[in-house]
Amino acid sequence: MLVSIPRGFRDFPPPFMILRKRVMERVEEIFKRYGFDPFDTPILELWETVKGKLGEETENRLMFIFPDFLSKEWYALRYELTFPLARYIAMHPETPLPFKRYHIGRVWRHEEPQKGRYREFWQCDADIVGSPCPEADAEIVKLNIEVMRTFGFRRYVVKINDRRLLTGIFEEELGIAKPAPVYRSIDKLDKIGEAGVRAELLAKGMNSHLVDKIINLTRIRGRFEEVYEDLRDISNEKVKTALDHLGSIFGIIEDDKLIFDLSLVRGLEYYTGPVFETIVKEPKIGSLAGGGRYDKLIGLYSGKDVPATGASIGIERLIDAGLELGILSLRDKSYIQVFVVSVKRDSWRYAWKVAEFLRKEGFYVSLDLMRRSQSNQREYARKLGAKVIVFVGPKEKDKRSVTIYSNGIRRTVSLENAARTINEVIS
Amino acid sequence: MLVSIPRGFRDFPPPFMILRKRVMERVEEIFKRYGFDPFDTPILELWETVKGKLGEETENRLMFIFPDFLSKEWYALRYELTFPLARYIAMHPETPLPFKRYHIGRVWRHEEPQKGRYREFWQCDADIVGSPCPEADAEIVKLNIEVMRTFGFRRYVVKINDRRLLTGIFEEELGIAKPAPVYRSIDKLDKIGEAGVRAELLAKGMNSHLVDKIINLTRIRGRFEEVYEDLRDISNEKVKTALDHLGSIFGIIEDDKLIFDLSLVRGLEYYTGPVFETIVKEPKIGSLAGGGRYDKLIGLYSGKDVPATGASIGIERLIDAGLELGILSLRDKSYIQVFVVSVKRDSWRYAWKVAEFLRKEGFYVSLDLMRRSQSNQREYARKLGAKVIVFVGPKEKDKRSVTIYSNGIRRTVSLENAARTINEVIS
Repeated sequence: MLVSIPRGFRDFPPPFMILRKRVMERVEEIFKRYGFDPFDTPILELWETVKGKLGEETENRLMFIFPDFLSKEWYALRYELTFPLARYIAMHPETPLPFKRYHIGRVWRHEEPQKGRYREFWQCDADIVGSPCPEADAEIVKLNIEVMRTFGFRRYVVKINDRRLLTGIFEEELGIAKPAPVYRSIDKLDKIGEAGVRAELLAKGMNSHLVDKIINLTRIRGRFEEVYEDLRDISNEKVKTALDHLGSIFGIIEDDKLIFDLSLVRGLEYYTGPVFETIVKEPKIGSLAGGGRYDKLIGLYSGKDVPATGASIGIERLIDAGLELGILSLRDKSYIQVFVVSVKRDSWRYAWKVAEFLRKEGFYVSLDLMRRSQSNQREYARKLGAKVIVFVGPKEKDKRSVTIYSNGIRRTVSLENAARTINEVIS
Repeated sequence: MLVSIPRGFRDFPPPFMILRKRVMERVEEIFKRYGFDPFDTPILELWETVKGKLGEETENRLMFIFPDFLSKEWYALRYELTFPLARYIAMHPETPLPFKRYHIGRVWRHEEPQKGRYREFWQCDADIVGSPCPEADAEIVKLNIEVMRTFGFRRYVVKINDRRLLTGIFEEELGIAKPAPVYRSIDKLDKIGEAGVRAELLAKGMNSHLVDKIINLTRIRGRFEEVYEDLRDISNEKVKTALDHLGSIFGIIEDDKLIFDLSLVRGLEYYTGPVFETIVKEPKIGSLAGGGRYDKLIGLYSGKDVPATGASIGIERLIDAGLELGILSLRDKSYIQVFVVSVKRDSWRYAWKVAEFLRKEGFYVSLDLMRRSQSNQREYARKLGAKVIVFVGPKEKDKRSVTIYSNGIRRTVSLENAARTINEVIS
């Protein structure tokens, strides 16, 4: 019999779930401290409301879209978490603004599965809807830095750019009528290097003088003051607005991790202002998080624009990077702290009472459910990694005591003192 | 512009998510205390591995099944959480047994939406794979009682029956060759009453003598000792095994909430032993949880049977019942505890510092991101239900102090003492 699951999808047995839950809880705690509230949406959106919004390539090649035979409707699996938020705000214009929500949930993409890339994966998004001010973008950037710091990442940067700079410079100043292919090449700078970008642009038929200018522009990166020197003389309205906005963000953040980078483009077409990406230098895994401002997206649904900004943290990449750097680990096989071993068959009822007692005290407790021998119970407890074994036999039963074993030390104490002793042993 | 979501699906804005998360965390904590570990599976299963296992009605009318145009495979949305577990165990025979996992996740059913019934909803399942012993069933029943107790439900029972009793009595003793229609009628006893069940059975062409016998049997309910008296004389092997098994479960549980009920059938076809259901007397919402033993399900995938037992808690019903009884509430609009109001525009940078400081101290803090007036900031904080407002103006900035306001009381303290004062105010 051949049993399997869909390609690019995964089961999560306890060691993986324990790690994922820990990671998500830490991210969530940061979101909460910054005043964000939880939010969720269906995994299915009506294809009717999605189509035409995510770009042809995405819609034709990356989205799970299907007809529902029972309702006769077409559905799309949630591709990311920003669109559902925009759709929600369009449906609920009464929402008090700014609306600061976080959304931890799965998304589905029909990618070719490879190391670190799946068809079903989790995103942790935080967005602020309603504020056009750089303070909102700054809070999102701060949140991203806080996440990296909390997990103990050291060698990373948060790159920032602004879509209005790209438009103002490449389209309006350099007069490039179709900038999308140029942006796509620039976006590969980290992967293919300057020579690669140059070759691509020439191959696209651009003249070498213009290509030189573009390459020079992509070199503009660093602290805001330096970059400002390079760009301040451009008297383009979009460029001036963007520099103002970015200047305010840098002024609030005051952190060396934030770096301006004119070569940062980001794929999604809905960004209208600042864009940012968190990149670790090691391992070479790409960006762990990214986002930006999208002031026109909600208007696509409601006809009325509402300014918004946000970022998405890729949980699988954060976990993969954290595991490689040794700042995360899969060592915990189980939540179980205490395993109660019934030494003889006639002490099993007392073993149940002991387990009940310890559960009430707040411990995570398991005990034999298979009528196994003492040694088989111990072997099982060892496999699960229980830190404490509580032995219960006829002697313990008679005296209402327990024998607590951990790390080679064995102590018999009264049941009433068991919790205190176990706490000492665990800590 | 008409924007909507699929019928029977829901968005969850913060007040709903805050309640749901609280409920799920409490359930999860109980699961952990009983030694269960977290587990998750894809939302999609290969239709190939599902079909033929859930019964025709479910597969034709209740499951979301669709072709994936990109992979050319047929997928099914997860209908419940037991099948994915069985499929996982079949794929991972190396899993140490017993495998005690909990799974909190969404499932999808193409039901006709109505009050308390949705097409997308959450289940919290706890299962024990590997043990044929009544101890395992007892632990699952105990877990269910513990959940009800923790949430403060009072008027409820956990009904228990055993599939082998049904088979042994109705099929073997009464010689009913096709018992399924009989079971379906019996299962409606609570809804349509004895007269209704009698009418249905007669309409199905059964003779009235047999119907009398059946009606008498469905009256067998109560404490195990009483029921045992009624059934002990039946010398049927299945009945004897079931009574033994149930006797052991009652012996372990020792709780008035556990009631034997021969009319309890439960829909799913895969049960092979004890079945149970948690039912609240008020409101009339049906069962909040249910489950049973399914020793043949894993074998459907692997060809090799592995005993298993478990239960599923329906989160939406638990929440709906809890809200109606007033033991749960939707009062919290936001997690935010503290809102920092910048009194004048030139104190906003200090307001950011204060917010940062309080976040480091562990508070959930928001502040103005819209350059609003003081009164608009306060109005927004009030809407979110922030318990504490921290005012920051030029005076506070100069003295590195904050003015803390809550419940009509206003106190100005140094920033260093802010956390302590806020904790006093909150508690």
